[in-house]
Amino acid sequence: MKIGILTAGGDCPGLNAAIRSVGKTAILNYGMEVCGISDGFRGLLTKKITSIKEENLSGLLTLGGTILGTSREKPFQKSDIDEQDKPQIIKENYKKLGFDALVIIGGNGTMKTAQLLQEEGINVVGIPKTIDNDVWGTDITFGFDTAFSIATDAIDRLHTTANSHNRIMVIEVMGHNAGWIALYSGIAGGGDAILIPELGYNENDLAEFLVERNKLDKKYSIVVVAEGLILPKSKKSPGRYIAKRISTLTGLETRETILGYVQRGGTPTPTDRVLATRYGSAAVDLLVEGNFGKMVALKNDKIVPIDLKEVAGKIKLVSKNHPLIKKSKAIGTFLGAK
Amino acid sequence: MKIGILTAGGDCPGLNAAIRSVGKTAILNYGMEVCGISDGFRGLLTKKITSIKEENLSGLLTLGGTILGTSREKPFQKSDIDEQDKPQIIKENYKKLGFDALVIIGGNGTMKTAQLLQEEGINVVGIPKTIDNDVWGTDITFGFDTAFSIATDAIDRLHTTANSHNRIMVIEVMGHNAGWIALYSGIAGGGDAILIPELGYNENDLAEFLVERNKLDKKYSIVVVAEGLILPKSKKSPGRYIAKRISTLTGLETRETILGYVQRGGTPTPTDRVLATRYGSAAVDLLVEGNFGKMVALKNDKIVPIDLKEVAGKIKLVSKNHPLIKKSKAIGTFLGAK
Amino acid sequence: MKIGILTAGGDCPGLNAAIRSVGKTAILNYGMEVCGISDGFRGLLTKKITSIKEENLSGLLTLGGTILGTSREKPFQKSDIDEQDKPQIIKENYKKLGFDALVIIGGNGTMKTAQLLQEEGINVVGIPKTIDNDVWGTDITFGFDTAFSIATDAIDRLHTTANSHNRIMVIEVMGHNAGWIALYSGIAGGGDAILIPELGYNENDLAEFLVERNKLDKKYSIVVVAEGLILPKSKKSPGRYIAKRISTLTGLETRETILGYVQRGGTPTPTDRVLATRYGSAAVDLLVEGNFGKMVALKNDKIVPIDLKEVAGKIKLVSKNHPLIKKSKAIGTFLGAK
Amino acid sequence: MKIGILTAGGDCPGLNAAIRSVGKTAILNYGMEVCGISDGFRGLLTKKITSIKEENLSGLLTLGGTILGTSREKPFQKSDIDEQDKPQIIKENYKKLGFDALVIIGGNGTMKTAQLLQEEGINVVGIPKTIDNDVWGTDITFGFDTAFSIATDAIDRLHTTANSHNRIMVIEVMGHNAGWIALYSGIAGGGDAILIPELGYNENDLAEFLVERNKLDKKYSIVVVAEGLILPKSKKSPGRYIAKRISTLTGLETRETILGYVQRGGTPTPTDRVLATRYGSAAVDLLVEGNFGKMVALKNDKIVPIDLKEVAGKIKLVSKNHPLIKKSKAIGTFLGAK
Repeated sequence: MKIGILTAGGDCPGLNAAIRSVGKTAILNYGMEVCGISDGFRGLLTKKITSIKEENLSGLLTLGGTILGTSREKPFQKSDIDEQDKPQIIKENYKKLGFDALVIIGGNGTMKTAQLLQEEGINVVGIPKTIDNDVWGTDITFGFDTAFSIATDAIDRLHTTANSHNRIMVIEVMGHNAGWIALYSGIAGGGDAILIPELGYNENDLAEFLVERNKLDKKYSIVVVAEGLILPKSKKSPGRYIAKRISTLTGLETRETILGYVQRGGTPTPTDRVLATRYGSAAVDLLVEGNFGKMVALKNDKIVPIDLKEVAGKIKLVSKNHPLIKKSKAIGTFLGAK
Repeated sequence: MKIGILTAGGDCPGLNAAIRSVGKTAILNYGMEVCGISDGFRGLLTKKITSIKEENLSGLLTLGGTILGTSREKPFQKSDIDEQDKPQIIKENYKKLGFDALVIIGGNGTMKTAQLLQEEGINVVGIPKTIDNDVWGTDITFGFDTAFSIATDAIDRLHTTANSHNRIMVIEVMGHNAGWIALYSGIAGGGDAILIPELGYNENDLAEFLVERNKLDKKYSIVVVAEGLILPKSKKSPGRYIAKRISTLTGLETRETILGYVQRGGTPTPTDRVLATRYGSAAVDLLVEGNFGKMVALKNDKIVPIDLKEVAGKIKLVSKNHPLIKKSKAIGTFLGAK
Repeated sequence: MKIGILTAGGDCPGLNAAIRSVGKTAILNYGMEVCGISDGFRGLLTKKITSIKEENLSGLLTLGGTILGTSREKPFQKSDIDEQDKPQIIKENYKKLGFDALVIIGGNGTMKTAQLLQEEGINVVGIPKTIDNDVWGTDITFGFDTAFSIATDAIDRLHTTANSHNRIMVIEVMGHNAGWIALYSGIAGGGDAILIPELGYNENDLAEFLVERNKLDKKYSIVVVAEGLILPKSKKSPGRYIAKRISTLTGLETRETILGYVQRGGTPTPTDRVLATRYGSAAVDLLVEGNFGKMVALKNDKIVPIDLKEVAGKIKLVSKNHPLIKKSKAIGTFLGAK
Repeated sequence: MKIGILTAGGDCPGLNAAIRSVGKTAILNYGMEVCGISDGFRGLLTKKITSIKEENLSGLLTLGGTILGTSREKPFQKSDIDEQDKPQIIKENYKKLGFDALVIIGGNGTMKTAQLLQEEGINVVGIPKTIDNDVWGTDITFGFDTAFSIATDAIDRLHTTANSHNRIMVIEVMGHNAGWIALYSGIAGGGDAILIPELGYNENDLAEFLVERNKLDKKYSIVVVAEGLILPKSKKSPGRYIAKRISTLTGLETRETILGYVQRGGTPTPTDRVLATRYGSAAVDLLVEGNFGKMVALKNDKIVPIDLKEVAGKIKLVSKNHPLIKKSKAIGTFLGAK
């Protein structure tokens, strides 16, 4: 059996750990031939591939990024400029290269593409990755533990400055659509207020909450804001916008930090390495079973296959009834409204 | 409602985060009166307690250890020297101090004591903690993520030295009865062999495995050994013993590291802080519901109550069929036998 | 002898370690009475002081921020609004409180104020702190090692994302006037270009350098920019401005990160703890010798006293002939011009 | 000019950063031809060398260990078994391989060998590395900052466990002959007692000191012990021995940790990366100047050449009058005697 691996979409800690696990399982456990496809789906268009041997898989657990490279190439997205029939090219290349199946590692958009490739007759198994943790159908994606840990470390550092200066510190963390990073890092870092897109927020309530804290001799506050927070007719970053509004409404000294790209790079946490290893190995098991068109997912701490059709086009948001929402409120955290 | 909190047994990252969450939920969400009981069950014998206000709960998320102190005091354990009827004293003190219920944070032994106190008519709710992750009835305990992360960091560092010197590096990690820390840190750190009590080991197979690696130009190997590994008539530490046996059987240069206490102290990982917060808050919910004699447990990522009777006296070991065992083998890890 | 300690100016890792060392040396070695003055020079105006005993000095080595609080209060700065004669008030309070001397921990501005207080007859010894490392008269200030280490960690993380996406990543690090953090973190993090205020930059040279790298199959670059970089008639942050210019001039995909406040908070590195401890203890020695009006400084790895007069009003910039500039160029780093 | 680089002796964080800097300076700044010699001096005997191009130098700053490998081979050490005239073989290979000079990275023993090679007519420049910081002639070696930082992190973690359990925690850190790691990590980590070979210790004084602390309601103590501490007729590790003696003499609950190899592996601190970069680049400057037979050394924050003759066979110990000794005592640390 000859398989190809590719990583698509944004950088995410644990990609290399997943590649390593796919490669080791395929080579050592099943004696497969393994190829790395460069730069996501673009590599399937350009046939940029390399053979992967066991010795190429050393040192990958701790290495951030992806040794295969990645891209935002979406072969099923029509464009006027591009005259090529990309799906057709991919099908031909898949055959020419002699692949029996592909392992496709990516987020929501990538799983959609994977499903479309499956419909075109290419055998695929998907592995969910994203720091945002918003892939539908799985309890958790690798990359998330690292991302929210980095965000928590940053919040830990802001605490001391907020405290020393009696300031309000606003920190914007990643999360395009979903508030998972903000919620988890907010709880782990002791954020006093956490604003996420799913819950929205009332700025007067927020201001009142912060003023009350100030009166109670809690001289500083930490406000954690998800990047995806929906703002009233404004193009500003949520972190900057919220900081400005707080300053205006409360008169309290307020500063913002936009944490940015540091959340998606670098060495994965041990927890993410274990998860990426589990996913990678389980994906190869599915290939061997001929169980294609599936994504490996974590459900109740077990890896299970889930139809790519079920996953594609959906997104996993923080539910208003999520236990962590209730627990956050119980310990006094402001979550958008009083 | 007036409640007491105590922490018993060994130190564990996240204890303070749990105390904080119990305290904040009790005070802010339910308006309870909260007391800290010093030094585990000993504080119930000596009535060493302090009132806890919200302002005492600041700065605890990142703080290792337990602000309440802990001890190995087991009030139901009979001793010849000790003439006191300790359970009786505790019952009296519980009444004198006006407690309505206790939140008891500890491991297996502590949960047993908690259950016995409940049978004596004291209202208790237990919160499971232990770096070993071997508390029965819950998927995971806080402290484990931190402990296995510290062990993984150590393995990461040993890799480079093993590699530079073409050595076999043996590392002994914690885990009295259960191999969880060894298994997880072994996978996360890329251990080539992992020896845990649940699976035992064949030393000739191990030696052969390491010699074969050496022949294949994999010039170094990492062997992760659980502290609780059962040794043949020997009092030596498993790490030291295994290193000596490897050296004798293979002739390869071998060194050992006994990681020790650093695994149980210090700042908890963000993941452990979230878990400890969830447990702490859920425990108070049980108190409010009058749902005593229970331990809060994580099952399929939900916090559920579980009877202390069911938990007490049991231990959660790594099953031979655990998915991680299969996955570890699939990526080429030696797990006790060829 | 009764002494007061205060911390003024911005937050800086190691402040608490310095306070601990002043306190321990004064109490244990010399039997002094020690007071903490709250919120920088403001505490001298409001007489907000607390007695410091040895037991208050536990746990401070790892604790970020300052237990005394800080402020930007500059008592010698005239303002129309403020009718008070602040220096006079401070002199009176100093007497009323029975102080024999003050230990003043701060940056450039604070050393200026310290010198003016000395001229008013108050006995002071200064301790230099600032993450920017720009205090004149000392080889290094505590806080700098931590700040540039945090910046380096961020650069490490950006590398993997830049590499995975073939991007140019611009990171703005702190340094109002001086490029020390940018220079050190740029070298430690393997920045391909480092832009600091002292050297300026030519944007065409920069663009050419980055385009050439791209042609040589070095598909990504890291550009480290000091916050204080002087920009052509623009109010934008240097990081954002430079990223935009690179994108415009080269057409290469470019992203920016503004690291911000995380560089000034949190646990100090071990190196900064040692330095803060040395400074703190040496400052008390000067008090005992009656050697007032001095700042403790590190010169050739020895702590020496230096006249506050010499220090005040000056700033230590990166010299164009600094050895690190030469070394950076030798390993191929772009430093403002080709 | 064609040069060879080798790394000899024990693993040390920063070796790869130094190799990178030598390589980049030689290739980019001077257009030299650069070869890596494998496994220390052994590679000079076996002619195991590889060509180093600029692209081989990527990713090395953060990588622990040495990509060249290392060994304890000492070609000038006579052995009965070994009939070869190793120095003669090295001279011949040096010529055959067409080298103009060698950069030799190592500790005390390696600098001795380097000097002997120079006397044999081979052009060498040495770069000092060792986690122990005991190379004579330089203020500091790279690797030391990382090693003492790892030791400090461990001490930080032990604090919480010691505190929670009211225990004495003994930690043995590296330092064969010199107490630098123990002294620095002891100060940075807040060790209550620090025992180093240079100062010796009186066990009764130590016991008394710890008992007094216990009486003063300082319920726990941290004792930092250098690996090289001289023990009375005992083969036990100093950490284990001292812990046992404390337990016997004081009756206090005492536990030991032998930190071991984790101190010498893994990613170097940013500070060590900067130092290794400076050394590496400066060593190539010396080659270009024809200034052979020298070691690059840090003196008063400047890199200077120092005769290998002056360095060889000497060791840099902690002086009894070292400022840090005085400062440690001033803040109440026990340093071997009361």
